[in-house]
Amino acid sequence: MMAKLPEKTVERLSQYRRTLLNLMQQGRTHVYSHELGHMHNYTAVQVRRDLMFIRYSGAQRKGYDVADLARYIGTVLDSETGLNLAVVGMGNLGRAITAYFSGKRPKLNLVAAFDVDPAKTDRVIAGVYCYPMRQLRQIISEKDISIAMITVPVDHAIEVTNELVLAGIKGILNFTTVPVTVPPHVYLEEYDMITSIEKVAYFVTSMQKQD
Amino acid sequence: MMAKLPEKTVERLSQYRRTLLNLMQQGRTHVYSHELGHMHNYTAVQVRRDLMFIRYSGAQRKGYDVADLARYIGTVLDSETGLNLAVVGMGNLGRAITAYFSGKRPKLNLVAAFDVDPAKTDRVIAGVYCYPMRQLRQIISEKDISIAMITVPVDHAIEVTNELVLAGIKGILNFTTVPVTVPPHVYLEEYDMITSIEKVAYFVTSMQKQD
Repeated sequence: MMAKLPEKTVERLSQYRRTLLNLMQQGRTHVYSHELGHMHNYTAVQVRRDLMFIRYSGAQRKGYDVADLARYIGTVLDSETGLNLAVVGMGNLGRAITAYFSGKRPKLNLVAAFDVDPAKTDRVIAGVYCYPMRQLRQIISEKDISIAMITVPVDHAIEVTNELVLAGIKGILNFTTVPVTVPPHVYLEEYDMITSIEKVAYFVTSMQKQD
Repeated sequence: MMAKLPEKTVERLSQYRRTLLNLMQQGRTHVYSHELGHMHNYTAVQVRRDLMFIRYSGAQRKGYDVADLARYIGTVLDSETGLNLAVVGMGNLGRAITAYFSGKRPKLNLVAAFDVDPAKTDRVIAGVYCYPMRQLRQIISEKDISIAMITVPVDHAIEVTNELVLAGIKGILNFTTVPVTVPPHVYLEEYDMITSIEKVAYFVTSMQKQD
């Protein structure tokens, strides 16, 4: 079994696979490391190092086999049996994530949504059944949900996180602007869109200063 | 003037500032490097290295002054005069981003939205005026918009990117799953939520294997 990969390696592998799947749809069969790197602003050396790290040895004179490499990355990243996911909070962001996510990765099944608003609960929204928050623990247990994506209003982020931990969730992706804390056995990823936008703004400003 | 910072440093500085602003709201006046690091899963050494890198020398026995450090990071990250932003595509994600973003950073002004759907255009949505796509060039020029966030359906991502480049945009944040390309004078950041979710899934699976 492979040792646990560093976070940044996992991120890059996920990005490579996304691009490989796109290339497959375009009918491409092979890709060079420098092409794959260029599409994500990484060097060819970085790509080759990542693939050596996961012991992929499929480089040929015409580059990597796109389908084979996508499949191989899947064996590294994906759970064999698949994982069940839930979205907590079905506002605009929750619905956008649900629509965006649906069917993109066969090993990640979005099986439930939760909200407090009776206008949103007990029906299907964006393709997923939305349960009332009071059923959180029961549904997480019954449906063996291991990952939750939080898109609730900021005032509820911490309380919802705590409820998810008590319900036995194993991983949380927090889309709110409020940092939350979890016990060591739960994996937490915070994603704040402000950081991406500030990054673009910083480099735009830098380029303008150079003019 | 400071040399251009590496991308990862900019990301971390943005994250530190977000947390500092949250701490300020909670009434905290000082924070230690190990606390600030811990909140983002970085080491204290990393935090101190980043702040030395931007020549911040405000460490005291009781830690950094929260307000002073937040302000200092602002002088590094923000444009002095501020930048104008637009959202292209006012579906669920566009509306979520608009609502999420509004008023969070005084130097980044979301001044316009664009959509092709007549039901969404020529009115205010989530606090921002939504123009028809055919006015893209005119409004970007008139309102001096330098950054665009793309949340259009995948089939339109490339076409919209090309139109934005022709309209003179300087930075693009692409939220669609389709990678786009831009000329070297435009800064591009691709953000695919799938990567964040796959990262959580990978580490949840790793932890289960250890059990």
